[in-house]
Amino acid sequence: MNHDFVLKQLTWRYAVKKFDSSKKISATDWQILEESLRLSPSSYGLQPWKFIVVHNKEILKQLTSLSWGQSQVEDCSHYIVFTTKVQLDEEHIDRHVAKTAEIREIDVKNLAGYKRVMVGDLLNGPRSETIFHWAQRQAYIAMGFLMQTAAMMQIDSCPLEGLDPKGYDKVLGLENTGFGTVAAVACGYRHLDDKYQNIKKVRFDKKDIIIHLD
Amino acid sequence: MNHDFVLKQLTWRYAVKKFDSSKKISATDWQILEESLRLSPSSYGLQPWKFIVVHNKEILKQLTSLSWGQSQVEDCSHYIVFTTKVQLDEEHIDRHVAKTAEIREIDVKNLAGYKRVMVGDLLNGPRSETIFHWAQRQAYIAMGFLMQTAAMMQIDSCPLEGLDPKGYDKVLGLENTGFGTVAAVACGYRHLDDKYQNIKKVRFDKKDIIIHLD
Repeated sequence: MNHDFVLKQLTWRYAVKKFDSSKKISATDWQILEESLRLSPSSYGLQPWKFIVVHNKEILKQLTSLSWGQSQVEDCSHYIVFTTKVQLDEEHIDRHVAKTAEIREIDVKNLAGYKRVMVGDLLNGPRSETIFHWAQRQAYIAMGFLMQTAAMMQIDSCPLEGLDPKGYDKVLGLENTGFGTVAAVACGYRHLDDKYQNIKKVRFDKKDIIIHLD
Repeated sequence: MNHDFVLKQLTWRYAVKKFDSSKKISATDWQILEESLRLSPSSYGLQPWKFIVVHNKEILKQLTSLSWGQSQVEDCSHYIVFTTKVQLDEEHIDRHVAKTAEIREIDVKNLAGYKRVMVGDLLNGPRSETIFHWAQRQAYIAMGFLMQTAAMMQIDSCPLEGLDPKGYDKVLGLENTGFGTVAAVACGYRHLDDKYQNIKKVRFDKKDIIIHLD
């Protein structure tokens, strides 16, 4: 691959304000986007997340009103709500340890030390106090992977943080599931009328955000 | 581009435990990695971050001891520390508004409404209480962009969250700068001896993490 291609696509990407609702992501492309979420890295590989893809038009309508009325919720092709564990627990860690044992074909007993480190750090250590935020941060890596994968495939996206997480939880039936809404990403194809595609991207100069310590 | 290529590279990627310290990222490739950081999206486009690339061997040595002794800090090609605003302030928002006016060649006065929304939401609204975590989350999108861009270019990486942020701040001279350490990413090339490259990737099944609401 030409390395400049990555740069070209990252420059091409922008937060779409208006999608062309007649254009849908193909099933084949969608499978790759799902895999980009699944393959995202996370702390200890714990994947403290679930991604909810909302197709139901009635639910999307309700989510729009919980998202400052942003039109992307309904005019995009695929609307993905990012949710994370509200409280990380030993059960989740056990589930990850069991999956590790299964995939790598080893005895779960051999992972006792690995489990002990995770429990000591995340459930009993100082990080336990902000574990909710820890889980949310991991989801943002997956948001990055999803948006960049989409850009590589010439598929548009828009991240949405301006939403009512508690309202989303209610509409999506997340209450008492142990998962809570963090943010969302709308994926699809930009509408030719979306004027934001022609406006220059705003970024600080490289010298102001990248510091080299020689 | 063949869309399967993205999938191939995301599968190829893993958290490198041992880098080949003799292999360095070329200056041309490094420029693209820097751009992937700079072009990363963030809430309101506020980019509440600085990325510190540590080349100094003495500093890297000190950081290793603040990172559970993980060898990647020193054996990688480029070690990037992610830092974010400890407390978002009006000055930062003004800086972003001024840059927007400059790049888009508009009068800063025309952005007064945009500024008002950001101040109302992030500095005075309910989100102000957890604005530190908000800034950290944004940095994780950039971590995702950096790691995926690297993977696209057949460059390896390893994210490091197991580090002492306050210790890093001291060593990197961040105290009283308004920025604090969040996490780090080591970039470079995997050592052929790193056994983790041959171990199967562990992920939950798609049906357990991706939910469709029809």
